[in-house]
Amino acid sequence: MQEYEYMKLALSLARAAEGQTSPNPLVGAVVVKNGNILGMGAHLRAGTPHAEVHAIRAAGVEASGSDLYVTLEPCSHHGKTPPCTELIIEAGIKRVIVATQDPNPLVAGKGIERLRSAGIEVEVGLCKGEADNMNKPFFHFIKTRQPFVTLKAGLSLDGKTAASSGDSKWITSSEARLDVHELRHKHDAILVGINTVLTDDPLLTTRLPRGGKNPNRIILDTQLRTPLNARIVEDRSAKTIIITGENIDTQKKYALKQKGVEVISLSSKTISLQDVLFELGKKNIMSLLVEGGGEVHASFIKEQVYQQIIFYVAPLLIGGKQSFPVIGGNGATVMKEAEKLTFISIEKIGSDLKITAIPREKDSDV
Amino acid sequence: MQEYEYMKLALSLARAAEGQTSPNPLVGAVVVKNGNILGMGAHLRAGTPHAEVHAIRAAGVEASGSDLYVTLEPCSHHGKTPPCTELIIEAGIKRVIVATQDPNPLVAGKGIERLRSAGIEVEVGLCKGEADNMNKPFFHFIKTRQPFVTLKAGLSLDGKTAASSGDSKWITSSEARLDVHELRHKHDAILVGINTVLTDDPLLTTRLPRGGKNPNRIILDTQLRTPLNARIVEDRSAKTIIITGENIDTQKKYALKQKGVEVISLSSKTISLQDVLFELGKKNIMSLLVEGGGEVHASFIKEQVYQQIIFYVAPLLIGGKQSFPVIGGNGATVMKEAEKLTFISIEKIGSDLKITAIPREKDSDV
Repeated sequence: MQEYEYMKLALSLARAAEGQTSPNPLVGAVVVKNGNILGMGAHLRAGTPHAEVHAIRAAGVEASGSDLYVTLEPCSHHGKTPPCTELIIEAGIKRVIVATQDPNPLVAGKGIERLRSAGIEVEVGLCKGEADNMNKPFFHFIKTRQPFVTLKAGLSLDGKTAASSGDSKWITSSEARLDVHELRHKHDAILVGINTVLTDDPLLTTRLPRGGKNPNRIILDTQLRTPLNARIVEDRSAKTIIITGENIDTQKKYALKQKGVEVISLSSKTISLQDVLFELGKKNIMSLLVEGGGEVHASFIKEQVYQQIIFYVAPLLIGGKQSFPVIGGNGATVMKEAEKLTFISIEKIGSDLKITAIPREKDSDV
Repeated sequence: MQEYEYMKLALSLARAAEGQTSPNPLVGAVVVKNGNILGMGAHLRAGTPHAEVHAIRAAGVEASGSDLYVTLEPCSHHGKTPPCTELIIEAGIKRVIVATQDPNPLVAGKGIERLRSAGIEVEVGLCKGEADNMNKPFFHFIKTRQPFVTLKAGLSLDGKTAASSGDSKWITSSEARLDVHELRHKHDAILVGINTVLTDDPLLTTRLPRGGKNPNRIILDTQLRTPLNARIVEDRSAKTIIITGENIDTQKKYALKQKGVEVISLSSKTISLQDVLFELGKKNIMSLLVEGGGEVHASFIKEQVYQQIIFYVAPLLIGGKQSFPVIGGNGATVMKEAEKLTFISIEKIGSDLKITAIPREKDSDV
């Protein structure tokens, strides 16, 4: 195996734990000596050992004189677990290959420095792009203290999410709908507008054949209109957080709290998404899946508070001006006001296309 | 080289002439003996020699005892050129490998029969799928005597063709717009609604760096509102045909005719697309590129008179209900009324996606 193949292995170990490590990053590690893999590991859950620990433990005394491939710079500070740098030094690792530096500006480079000062050879940057990409939500959160926001929708090829009567069952294939549950599992929280709650009465849980983690459920509900008997309120399998404006019915707020629902009232008449993201960040919500409504999506775009779009495009044409557009709001008056994206990936999922896009850098506009 | 590789070569020879053989099909041929290619050819233009003739001529006397790979069953009838079967027999070809039969029910199989009765070994079906696909418009025309209709549009990821002011310059990348000119070159005719003429005053010619064929320009114009000074009228580099309803201004019709424009008046108040396709079929227009307008596209879908959709999807979001939808009309009221498609191919063209889809078989609906 070549060096990059060991790192790819470490990356796939890391990725296997997607959705279960928050608020920690995904990390994978592989210990190699004389062309033999002696240990492998991934960080599996916050508060449990880091990837390096699993891999070095598996190698045991054999770790001495070996190479360690790790997808993220080893930590050098005391957190919930002791610093990995010290374990690496004690184990007698000869060389450490790091895919990418810790993004936290306060600690970046310190782990690498510590290893080098102990006489260990350190190389940085192998498969960096992939490593950075895998932890985009974590890196974003570390820098901004706000969740990484993904706008998700299922739509027809002509950009509609429902026919004119509101009927939308089903636009996308069962395979695409299953993929959405994978997305839910991988996110810390899911957000909808009050209209979705009133219209669809959704559960917003993760329903995968072999289980999965339920994200926190966030409802944007300026006037606290969420019914006390909504499924999202009655169902306790995941936490529900309702975000409202000021001057709401305190009795209803109390009744909801009695049912285990958290109500966050912002001190403004309308809800600013910037404020919402700030509140969610305080709760260590690193990744947020927005399952709007055209109006909710339009607001996130208008306020420029999203990092990614995932659209499941079905081979259907709904047509007409009375059907529901995937992006509502007022829309662009002229083309230069249109929101500019970059397509990142296109995948076929069942009979649908899964299109991933990110906002284009504003200064790269032509 | 393997058998299928010779046939692939014949297919690529055929495809090189796309856009220039109408109303004839694309055909390619390769003559092979003892693993050496002795001749190659394609049908290049109606009225000129068939692919087999070019390939056999190139082989000369060497053709005797050789294998002929040909993408379509050789003709056995006297048309503008003598039958290819006779040339194949005279040249002493030993074996003929045919990708697909002639779709014309009146002649299908007769060429093969003629060859076999002359003692030539004939095999049919190598790369049949590809051969059928390449000549879809021709096959459709032969069977229905109506053009193969492709609905084409450039749209944002959320299904809009223009911002709310009507501004649409540009939704798609220059690479995608160039690809549209390739499409025009490959079609016998291009069709727009009168609104496109009044709004955009387009030329609808093929503008490629190294030239190309201009398609006939068809305008659906029920009340003959096309201005006498429209560019599509003034410009004589391609034929313009206006299709109107009954009771139109005969003086204007005369004035347009004076400018070289053909005006076809249907004997009905509104224009039936079925009638339009019948008229175009009579003019040997085998392939029609519809560059609607959301309303024009919606009509073709409603009347179920299209065979293919090509959408260039740009990485943009326009949003809003006042912007222009790629499919207009009344739209579906419930999901089961939505038009069901099958995605055939997805290509990246510049920064855009080129999505090709076909209508799903009605009886395959779930």
